[in-house]
Amino acid sequence: MNPQKTPSTSTPADCEILELISYNRELYDKYTATSVDTVFTHIKKDRVNWINVDGLNNQDIIEKIQSHFCLHSLLIDDVLSDQRPKAEEFDDYLFFTLKMLYRIDGTAIDYEQISFVLGKDYLISFQEKEGDWFDGFRERIRLDQGRVRKKQADYLLYRLIDIIVDNYYNVLDRIGDLIDETEETVYQNPSTRTFTRIQNLKKELIFLRKALFPLRDALSKIVKGESDFVKEENLRFFSDVYEHVIHLTDSLDTYKDLVSSLTDIHINAMNTKMNEVMKVLTVISTIFIPLTFIVGVYGMNFKHMPELDWTWGYYGVWGIMIVMVVGMLAFFRYKKWF
Amino acid sequence: MNPQKTPSTSTPADCEILELISYNRELYDKYTATSVDTVFTHIKKDRVNWINVDGLNNQDIIEKIQSHFCLHSLLIDDVLSDQRPKAEEFDDYLFFTLKMLYRIDGTAIDYEQISFVLGKDYLISFQEKEGDWFDGFRERIRLDQGRVRKKQADYLLYRLIDIIVDNYYNVLDRIGDLIDETEETVYQNPSTRTFTRIQNLKKELIFLRKALFPLRDALSKIVKGESDFVKEENLRFFSDVYEHVIHLTDSLDTYKDLVSSLTDIHINAMNTKMNEVMKVLTVISTIFIPLTFIVGVYGMNFKHMPELDWTWGYYGVWGIMIVMVVGMLAFFRYKKWF
Amino acid sequence: MNPQKTPSTSTPADCEILELISYNRELYDKYTATSVDTVFTHIKKDRVNWINVDGLNNQDIIEKIQSHFCLHSLLIDDVLSDQRPKAEEFDDYLFFTLKMLYRIDGTAIDYEQISFVLGKDYLISFQEKEGDWFDGFRERIRLDQGRVRKKQADYLLYRLIDIIVDNYYNVLDRIGDLIDETEETVYQNPSTRTFTRIQNLKKELIFLRKALFPLRDALSKIVKGESDFVKEENLRFFSDVYEHVIHLTDSLDTYKDLVSSLTDIHINAMNTKMNEVMKVLTVISTIFIPLTFIVGVYGMNFKHMPELDWTWGYYGVWGIMIVMVVGMLAFFRYKKWF
Amino acid sequence: MNPQKTPSTSTPADCEILELISYNRELYDKYTATSVDTVFTHIKKDRVNWINVDGLNNQDIIEKIQSHFCLHSLLIDDVLSDQRPKAEEFDDYLFFTLKMLYRIDGTAIDYEQISFVLGKDYLISFQEKEGDWFDGFRERIRLDQGRVRKKQADYLLYRLIDIIVDNYYNVLDRIGDLIDETEETVYQNPSTRTFTRIQNLKKELIFLRKALFPLRDALSKIVKGESDFVKEENLRFFSDVYEHVIHLTDSLDTYKDLVSSLTDIHINAMNTKMNEVMKVLTVISTIFIPLTFIVGVYGMNFKHMPELDWTWGYYGVWGIMIVMVVGMLAFFRYKKWF
Amino acid sequence: MNPQKTPSTSTPADCEILELISYNRELYDKYTATSVDTVFTHIKKDRVNWINVDGLNNQDIIEKIQSHFCLHSLLIDDVLSDQRPKAEEFDDYLFFTLKMLYRIDGTAIDYEQISFVLGKDYLISFQEKEGDWFDGFRERIRLDQGRVRKKQADYLLYRLIDIIVDNYYNVLDRIGDLIDETEETVYQNPSTRTFTRIQNLKKELIFLRKALFPLRDALSKIVKGESDFVKEENLRFFSDVYEHVIHLTDSLDTYKDLVSSLTDIHINAMNTKMNEVMKVLTVISTIFIPLTFIVGVYGMNFKHMPELDWTWGYYGVWGIMIVMVVGMLAFFRYKKWF
Repeated sequence: MNPQKTPSTSTPADCEILELISYNRELYDKYTATSVDTVFTHIKKDRVNWINVDGLNNQDIIEKIQSHFCLHSLLIDDVLSDQRPKAEEFDDYLFFTLKMLYRIDGTAIDYEQISFVLGKDYLISFQEKEGDWFDGFRERIRLDQGRVRKKQADYLLYRLIDIIVDNYYNVLDRIGDLIDETEETVYQNPSTRTFTRIQNLKKELIFLRKALFPLRDALSKIVKGESDFVKEENLRFFSDVYEHVIHLTDSLDTYKDLVSSLTDIHINAMNTKMNEVMKVLTVISTIFIPLTFIVGVYGMNFKHMPELDWTWGYYGVWGIMIVMVVGMLAFFRYKKWF
Repeated sequence: MNPQKTPSTSTPADCEILELISYNRELYDKYTATSVDTVFTHIKKDRVNWINVDGLNNQDIIEKIQSHFCLHSLLIDDVLSDQRPKAEEFDDYLFFTLKMLYRIDGTAIDYEQISFVLGKDYLISFQEKEGDWFDGFRERIRLDQGRVRKKQADYLLYRLIDIIVDNYYNVLDRIGDLIDETEETVYQNPSTRTFTRIQNLKKELIFLRKALFPLRDALSKIVKGESDFVKEENLRFFSDVYEHVIHLTDSLDTYKDLVSSLTDIHINAMNTKMNEVMKVLTVISTIFIPLTFIVGVYGMNFKHMPELDWTWGYYGVWGIMIVMVVGMLAFFRYKKWF
Repeated sequence: MNPQKTPSTSTPADCEILELISYNRELYDKYTATSVDTVFTHIKKDRVNWINVDGLNNQDIIEKIQSHFCLHSLLIDDVLSDQRPKAEEFDDYLFFTLKMLYRIDGTAIDYEQISFVLGKDYLISFQEKEGDWFDGFRERIRLDQGRVRKKQADYLLYRLIDIIVDNYYNVLDRIGDLIDETEETVYQNPSTRTFTRIQNLKKELIFLRKALFPLRDALSKIVKGESDFVKEENLRFFSDVYEHVIHLTDSLDTYKDLVSSLTDIHINAMNTKMNEVMKVLTVISTIFIPLTFIVGVYGMNFKHMPELDWTWGYYGVWGIMIVMVVGMLAFFRYKKWF
Repeated sequence: MNPQKTPSTSTPADCEILELISYNRELYDKYTATSVDTVFTHIKKDRVNWINVDGLNNQDIIEKIQSHFCLHSLLIDDVLSDQRPKAEEFDDYLFFTLKMLYRIDGTAIDYEQISFVLGKDYLISFQEKEGDWFDGFRERIRLDQGRVRKKQADYLLYRLIDIIVDNYYNVLDRIGDLIDETEETVYQNPSTRTFTRIQNLKKELIFLRKALFPLRDALSKIVKGESDFVKEENLRFFSDVYEHVIHLTDSLDTYKDLVSSLTDIHINAMNTKMNEVMKVLTVISTIFIPLTFIVGVYGMNFKHMPELDWTWGYYGVWGIMIVMVVGMLAFFRYKKWF
Repeated sequence: MNPQKTPSTSTPADCEILELISYNRELYDKYTATSVDTVFTHIKKDRVNWINVDGLNNQDIIEKIQSHFCLHSLLIDDVLSDQRPKAEEFDDYLFFTLKMLYRIDGTAIDYEQISFVLGKDYLISFQEKEGDWFDGFRERIRLDQGRVRKKQADYLLYRLIDIIVDNYYNVLDRIGDLIDETEETVYQNPSTRTFTRIQNLKKELIFLRKALFPLRDALSKIVKGESDFVKEENLRFFSDVYEHVIHLTDSLDTYKDLVSSLTDIHINAMNTKMNEVMKVLTVISTIFIPLTFIVGVYGMNFKHMPELDWTWGYYGVWGIMIVMVVGMLAFFRYKKWF
């Protein structure tokens, strides 16, 4: 009965979808298994038991967890289907679900739903995909860094949410950088590619909004102290994450305004370019169309055209035409067309 | 006095506009009839009695139901005329009305108003048209699948609303797909047809909004526990539908933003195309108008035009013109016009 | 002292600006007079007394009514000047003012302010113009149809407001029809006339909004049961009108979005038409300007132009030009310009 | 000690910046002086004492008033600097500040800040500039017209605010007229001047909004009965001004929508005009460019051009050209370009 | 033990990042040091102790302050990282953080985060950079000007926030001036540079909004009297700053509307200019293209062209062309194109 050795140092297998970390101030155990029943035997009353489930396809595991912890069927539905972030208090546990962000490449953001069930001495986390966002934090628990080993399961929940929300900052900062980059491009070269990029940024902000605003409400519910599963003393921590989420929604609004401003800039740059094209056409046409008329006049085959016989007629025509061109260029200069 | 056999297995007739399903944990009866009085005789106190009325044209049936259940005349007005979704508590029953969606084809959505009267041991549902959304669920009741036979009429109301709200998801998902399809089209071929499609999507979202937002308020009223006809223990179920409706309104807002973004993309694509047309015009005009002037010069009939007599004059003009064309092409390349 | 005969059957005179309908379950009297004092003598304590004043120019009548019913001077100011719809509770009566709509022609809507003073056994209604909206209802009272003769003055107020609000539905339906009509026109023929029509619809919606939103607040005040002059049992009726007004404001928002969508469609149709014009110009210019250059070349008068002497030179030029035209048409087809 | 005679009939001097009107039901005195101390000696306990200060540059007067009435230093700061309208309750007085409007010319509106300090038996009013808005009302007090001599200082405050708010109506009506005038102009002649006018109207509405919305909140504070210095019986009067201000803000929103609609109309009118210009260019170019090509063909100098020798060649070319012109005009007519 | 002499008159060194001002009604001491422990020894219970930290890079100082005043670790995180303005009450102190503005040049605004910790007898201020905004105020404390020496630490906090908020006014006034300047430019010369300037103004307003709106909420928290560290008697001062911040947010909204109006003006000015260019092109083309056609006609080489042999043919053609030009000019004048 000394599992401390093996699990905590075991090499992570590809197939590990179930993991239990069980700790208190003195002890720390980590078990990974694919059999739920094995895991349940290691849950200990006087410790914080963190059960992490990676991937939601294994019906069997989910059902066993449901029956072991008496989870409501609606809760399991919420874990398995796409939900808006929310906090819901049940009789024996608090349910919390939110979105985790993955920035993959370009402007596209990938989302994963992560759900938590917080009981008196346990925390279950359900992740859609295997992730390693929490690996660094697991190591901190093992090495007893920070406050976590001295606190209960509600503090653990706070830390996990905090890690997820911190990642939102990274994503928003990247979007902020993209907006700055695009702004520089758009002034110089307002192409369709730039416009597509602006629209994609806008789209990402729309989806981020859908993930962030309900999260704010969910956290607000906890911060107001409505939950029995978060201790009074730890409310300030949740309040801190709550403030961060509000800060993020502020930034979101700011970025939304900036992107909408980018669209204006793009449209203006397009128009400016178009105007330039039109001016070139107008200048060229306005200069040469009258000249072409003049040379056309002396291309007529009338028998009686006195000018044709003048010795200096040809040179006179050139003179008139040069005067006209100079006059028109002066007119355009006056109109500030170039 | 053993109606169980006949009704529940009877073949449904086209004319059936009145149907009674009466059940409890042990028993299940289904009666279809056009005579209201016959139906009333089969209502039993210790069961859940679900009376479904298809079509609202039969004045006689409506009036008999009104007098039998003592329904308020305003309530009957609301059932018969177009209403915004609402929940209204009367002394002896709860009235709930909402819109059911039918996606027919293209982007057009068809609506049907469905109203419920929830009493202590009965639920009356009024449908404008004969529908079969509930057929699968009727079968579940008959076969005693799920929780419904163990619960009362309020749970039945929850299930029916849940089925309707689930269908909203289908409709919104289809709209989401259409938005994605249209976005791809609009970048490549911004025709008036695409624009009409975008406007129609916008219109459907406007109408959906009109159906969904009041539904949220109506459900919120029930969730707050204000109704005497929904038991405390079943509030969580209504709360779940309520969450779904909020999720839907979030998606609606998201789609609204996406469609408005589509309009921007369409306008930009139109402008880009227009600019391209203008550039072609400008390039062609700017190249050939000066050339036409030059050949016009040597088409003049002046007697004294020395160039005309030069042996290489003709080739010289070609040389000058080729130099001009190359120069202008370089200018356009520099201006990044093509 | 038996006035029942005469008034109720008297022919209405043009000058009748004052009218008293006095009724209870058994009796019904109608008096029309221009003298206020005469009317006052017919008011009976145990009946509902409905005094209707048409036109607000007769200072004398207004003042006599004010002093007889002890109306507050601010209330009389509100009756006589343009007011936003509101409900205001005084010590001895409830004051209610709202706008009545008259659709005259085209899109223009005409408004009339109508004010009510509801006392314990009387209702005074002030109308700006002589109207006959209430005539059908007066007849119903006389014939004792519906509930009105069994109810008190507050129910009478409800019925009158209900009639006015029902008329809003007519007006909004007409606007809905106009929007549909305009939408069809705008796709085919986006003229300035269409645009003016859209702007006028927008304007009407802006003014309707100004009439409807405060009405909602005024009714909400009554529905909350704050008034001593509306009996508890009749609140549900006012609640029903209130729901109708909310339904109307929803429709208003919907129509506002549709009209704003119409503006977008108009602008797009204009741009599409403009683009078409530009394309025709560009196609014609791009085809003929180079051709004109070529024929210009062979119009030059150089002595040494070998092509001019070739036997097939002329036909060769035509050949080159035909090839060019075909090439350009292929280019335009490729660019999908027509 | 009989000042009644002199002040009330004294000729107003240019330099009068301090004025005391002291009245009750029986007595009325008016003193104008530049020395504050003189004025203070005339304040009488059993009367309403209205002290009006014109111009805020005389530090000495302000400081003496401050120390005599024990005004808070923050209050004096608010009187002297630009403030948003507000009502603030101090221990011994109520402070109320709002903006007065002066329409000078064109669309420009001039603002003046006016502040009131309402004590138990006095009202101090601070005006930035000498104004005569209140002169008519002063005369009414002197002649004992209306209710004012029968009421206390809070009623006086109501009347002064009411006069200021009434003036807002004048300004808004003028803006409404300007919007109507501009709308007619903009359809016919959408010049830059019209556009500037629309933008100026918009600007005035933005500034009006800044003056009106906080005033609504300030009055709302008083109407809720939070102030000890406004008697219960006079609340209805303040409530009436409050309703007027809400009416004004409604109108402001309406005007804002109308002006934004004007901008749309202007842009559309500009575009329509532009399209017309483009159509003329296109029609002329499309007709003459092909004709010019044809005449160019027969201007070529090839030796072998059989058409040139035909007797009817010249007339044939004219024939072909006339057919082309007719065809193109038919095409334009079909396209509905003119 | 007589430090009064030295610190208060000591010359400020570049490296001073820690400063203690300790005062009460009678005494005033100022110490600057880089060693925290030295500073702590000078803190006296019966005085107001203001500790100012310039620069947040010295980990050691921050940690020592944290442990000496028992500051929460989350608070220190907030001081060190970018935060939205907020007020947070802890058990032993009130935490307040806000943004200070620096206008550097052009339209760019620089921000600095400044945080305050208000205890019973001390105030700690953390500044990112060394600033001299408070230097004038330090001098006022030393010379015992104003109220500050008679008040406690909460009044000191008020004064510091007030100084920061006053600076917001300067920045907003400068933005107001820039808007006015830009408006004049944009009417005359709507260049890309003007547009960039408008967009930059818009951007600054977006960022200002992010700094000001949360500050309003933070101050509102204090004004509501929720804090134990701000005395009842000083609430009015905070309320005054609060009013200023609301005034600022009002101005911000106003400026936002004005800048958005500027964008409209810019777009209109661009379009007007474009239209002018198009009109010149159209006028020139429309006049000369038909003329060129006519001279082309008589440049044809048909053998049988009777007009060519007419004596007055040449002059006749000129006559026709002059008539055409006059006609077209009349047409353009009629169309009001110039």
